[in-house]
Amino acid sequence: MINKLVAKIKKTGAPVVVGLDPMLDYVPEHILKKSFEKYGETLEGAGDAIFEFNKGIIDATYDLIPAVKPQIAMYEQFGIPGMVAFKRTVDYAKSKDLVVIGDVKRGDIGSTSAAYATAHLGGVNIGLHNFKGFDEDFATVNPYLGTDGIKPFIEVCKEENKGLFILVKTSNPSSGEFQDQLIDGKPLYEKVAEKVAEWGEAHMGDDYSYVGAVVGATYPEVGKVLREVMPKAYILVPGYGAQGGTADGLKPYFNEDGLGAIVNSSRGIICAYKNEKYEKFGEQNYADASRAAVIDMIEDLQF
Amino acid sequence: MINKLVAKIKKTGAPVVVGLDPMLDYVPEHILKKSFEKYGETLEGAGDAIFEFNKGIIDATYDLIPAVKPQIAMYEQFGIPGMVAFKRTVDYAKSKDLVVIGDVKRGDIGSTSAAYATAHLGGVNIGLHNFKGFDEDFATVNPYLGTDGIKPFIEVCKEENKGLFILVKTSNPSSGEFQDQLIDGKPLYEKVAEKVAEWGEAHMGDDYSYVGAVVGATYPEVGKVLREVMPKAYILVPGYGAQGGTADGLKPYFNEDGLGAIVNSSRGIICAYKNEKYEKFGEQNYADASRAAVIDMIEDLQF
Repeated sequence: MINKLVAKIKKTGAPVVVGLDPMLDYVPEHILKKSFEKYGETLEGAGDAIFEFNKGIIDATYDLIPAVKPQIAMYEQFGIPGMVAFKRTVDYAKSKDLVVIGDVKRGDIGSTSAAYATAHLGGVNIGLHNFKGFDEDFATVNPYLGTDGIKPFIEVCKEENKGLFILVKTSNPSSGEFQDQLIDGKPLYEKVAEKVAEWGEAHMGDDYSYVGAVVGATYPEVGKVLREVMPKAYILVPGYGAQGGTADGLKPYFNEDGLGAIVNSSRGIICAYKNEKYEKFGEQNYADASRAAVIDMIEDLQF
Repeated sequence: MINKLVAKIKKTGAPVVVGLDPMLDYVPEHILKKSFEKYGETLEGAGDAIFEFNKGIIDATYDLIPAVKPQIAMYEQFGIPGMVAFKRTVDYAKSKDLVVIGDVKRGDIGSTSAAYATAHLGGVNIGLHNFKGFDEDFATVNPYLGTDGIKPFIEVCKEENKGLFILVKTSNPSSGEFQDQLIDGKPLYEKVAEKVAEWGEAHMGDDYSYVGAVVGATYPEVGKVLREVMPKAYILVPGYGAQGGTADGLKPYFNEDGLGAIVNSSRGIICAYKNEKYEKFGEQNYADASRAAVIDMIEDLQF
C-alpha cells in the first residue's frame, strides 16, 4: 500500500491528502434538506448528509489526488449512524481507487492494539469467513504505550500489505508540553522518531517503509531533523493552511527525490466554498470549490 | 458522576470495575449458537453474541460492583455491528445503575478531541434536538497531545457532569519506553501526573476530581509516588490478575480513607469459567463463575 501511495503521488504530482473531517455546519443546505427528508432530523439524517457531502468532494477531486484522510472523531460524534457514514466514506473512496488513511489515532496495550488493528486494517474470523470491520489502507497510531502497543499494528499491516502513520510531533499549540521535553538532551518526539525508524525496518516497501510518521506542518526546523532521523518513513503532515503551516516551510519534510511527505488539508479544501477566494462557486457547487482549492494547493506545493 | 462512583464504591465496599473486553472465543457455545441462528455467522451474529455474553455477566454482578469498563477496541473489531454491541452494553449497564467507563483512549488536537468528547460523553445538536452518540459516564483519554487535546474533554465533562481517566503510566511491559524517560530528573509519567492534578482542579467533585488517571497495577512504587502527586485524582488501575498485579501491591494506590483507586479486572472475571478455580460452574453457568470471581476479588482487596 505504501508502494501504491508513492506511485499515485508520482502519477498525480500531488503530495496531497484531502482530510474528510466534516462538521454538520460544513454541509450545504441542499444536501441537509435531502437527507433530513429521508431520515428526519436524526443521527441517521446527519450521517447520511455527511456521507453525501463527502461523496461530492470525492467525485470532484479523486482524479487529482492520491489519498483521502477521514478523521473518525468527526463521524464518531454521530454515534452508530456516524460510524456508518465513516464506513461508507472509506468504501466509496476506495471504489474511486483512492488510498484511504483512517485518522483514528488508536493505541493501547498489546492485545487491545491487536483488536484496533483488526478493526481498521485487518479482519475477524467468524465461522468459516473473514470479515473486515472498517478496512482502511493506513491508520494513524498513538505511540504513548511504546513498542508493544505498536507491534500488533505492524503484524496486521504485514499480513494485509497496509501501513501506519505514527504520531511523532503533532501540529497543535500545546503539543510541546510532553513531546518537546528533553530526554538526555533530545526532545521526546525525536526519541519517538528513532523508534518509528526502527519499527519501520520490519516492514519495508520498495523505497519507503509501511511505517510512516505524523509531523505537524508548523515546525519546519523540526521537520528537517526528523526527515533525517527517519529517512525511509513517509511523513504525513497536518496543519497546512488553516493551522498556519505554509508551503515554504514544508520543503524540509521532503527528501531530495521530491517524495517522502504527504500534506493534509481538511477545512481548506472541504470548506473552500465558505472561503472568500472560492465563494463565487456558491454553496450548490461546493464540490467545484473544493476542486479549485485542491488545484491551488497542488500548485502551491510545487517546489 | 465522580460523586456517584465514590458513593457506589462506599456502598458496595468494592473498589472494583469489571472490564467487559470480550473476545469471540470467550463466549459460551450456547450463546453463540443462539445469535448465529438469528443473524448467521456474520458480524451481526458476533456482535449480538458479545452483547448477550455481557448481559449475562452484568445481570450476575451488578449488585456487587460500582462500575463496568467496556474496552471499545474489542467491539470496534467487529465493525458497525460491534459498535452496536458496544452501545447496547453501555445502555444495558446504565439501566442497571452501573457507572460506565468507556475505555476508548481517544485524544487528538483541540477540535478533534472536542468531537471525541461529544461522541462519548456529550451530544450533538441536529435541528431542535440533542442526540447522544455513545453516552458513557467516563472516558479514558491519551495525553500525548498535551493540554489542548484534553481541555475539550473537560469542557464536555463540566456540562454533562461526567469524568475522565487520563493515561499516566500503563500496565504493559514496554510502557517505560517513553513514559519512564527522565525529564529534568523526573519520569515523563510524573510530568503527566502533575498535569492531571492541574487539569483536575478545574472540575472537582465533593472529595475527588472528575479528572482521574490510569496507572497500571504492576508498579506499586510508582503508584505510591503518583498517589501523592495527584491526591484528588481517582486512579483507575488495570493489570490486576491476568497482567500480574497483586492485591498487596495495590495498597499504595489508595488514600488513607480507603478510597482513591478502582481496580479493573477483565479476563479474570469475564473468563472465570475457563479458570480451573471456577470451572465447576461449567460453560452454561459462566455468569455465576464471574460472580464468584468478583466476590473473591472484592475479598482480596479488603486491606
